[in-house]
Amino acid sequence: MSESFTPSERTRVVREPQRGVYDRETVYKILDEGLVCHVGFSLEGQPFVIPTLFARVGDAIYFHGSAASRMLRGVSEGANVCVTVTLTDGIVLARSVFNHSMNYRSVVALGKATLVETPQEKLEALRAFTEKILSGRWDDARQPNEKELKATSILRLPLTEASAKVRVGPPEDDAPDYALSVWAGVIPLGVVAGAPIRDERCDLGIPLPAYAANYRR
Amino acid sequence: MSESFTPSERTRVVREPQRGVYDRETVYKILDEGLVCHVGFSLEGQPFVIPTLFARVGDAIYFHGSAASRMLRGVSEGANVCVTVTLTDGIVLARSVFNHSMNYRSVVALGKATLVETPQEKLEALRAFTEKILSGRWDDARQPNEKELKATSILRLPLTEASAKVRVGPPEDDAPDYALSVWAGVIPLGVVAGAPIRDERCDLGIPLPAYAANYRR
Repeated sequence: MSESFTPSERTRVVREPQRGVYDRETVYKILDEGLVCHVGFSLEGQPFVIPTLFARVGDAIYFHGSAASRMLRGVSEGANVCVTVTLTDGIVLARSVFNHSMNYRSVVALGKATLVETPQEKLEALRAFTEKILSGRWDDARQPNEKELKATSILRLPLTEASAKVRVGPPEDDAPDYALSVWAGVIPLGVVAGAPIRDERCDLGIPLPAYAANYRR
Repeated sequence: MSESFTPSERTRVVREPQRGVYDRETVYKILDEGLVCHVGFSLEGQPFVIPTLFARVGDAIYFHGSAASRMLRGVSEGANVCVTVTLTDGIVLARSVFNHSMNYRSVVALGKATLVETPQEKLEALRAFTEKILSGRWDDARQPNEKELKATSILRLPLTEASAKVRVGPPEDDAPDYALSVWAGVIPLGVVAGAPIRDERCDLGIPLPAYAANYRR
């Protein structure tokens, strides 16, 4: 794989083209930080957008076939899909309403997804989901059995046509507006984890694992 | 408008139907808490999913025509769109890998979006965006002028066909797994705002407004 995606007619950033980023390192970093992706597919002329868990493994995305029957119908038979991951990093307060914005990093990946068929590849995808969400958890939890693997629908999208869009930094106002007496700047946003809540049915003798106690996004 | 959406073939929650919620109050609360929506549309057989700012006003969603040329082509001429809003509330750690999940609240709204044409309605939508992100900001910032309103693309989707999907609470394990010595519970997730960062070009004599200093999501 080359180090950058070649922007296609479909993935080149059209609006605010200076925010388009095409190197794999940036794209993969955004994908690895996102917890949830939004999968777009069409059924009988109606687009659907469904949030679901995912993980990147090498040069592909695995995502969970949640909303299963509809999504599976929508992505089967070689249909085109779009997987989008968005991280919101801040609220950008400009002096003018018009130049208010968000700082964000997003990735749009296009292509055809295929159902993962072998138990081995399903297991690897589940491991990637679990370890991505909470590194260390895979070895603690009960492993999937044959029946569960059969009941698990996982789709694979190769990362061949993708691009990122990134906005960072302070507001950009029109030149005359800098003279206005309006506070301007950025309010950073981030995801935080609260204190873990033990299941009432979890024996108090079972200690909270370090990966849960020290969880940070 | 009735107090509940009538689930259609397209919005009825198929997988995990017990998580489907159709009353407007729940749907609207999720929409009002979300900062960003994901807009799905199709162009030449390819679905696209684009994140953008939005606000609910009454029984409609307004969203920003960012990624403008592609999205505007994709939603014009009465094409079907899907607007999805997702809030991730927690990581659900079950005893088995298979029953790991997320706590989340999401809304899927389907329909045809139309371009907002009048400056007055555009102004109202911009006001809703701004006040939703940061209540109090609208009156402080410089108001949009005629040229800026012309350059702003805003789309309106009436909320007629929509549903929510909500997962809350502890993990649900298979009965025999409750005997396993595996910590189980939920790690709550939330969005937090950091300390506001003043634009270097913002005069130190301009005080940080209370709505920015006290910002909470």
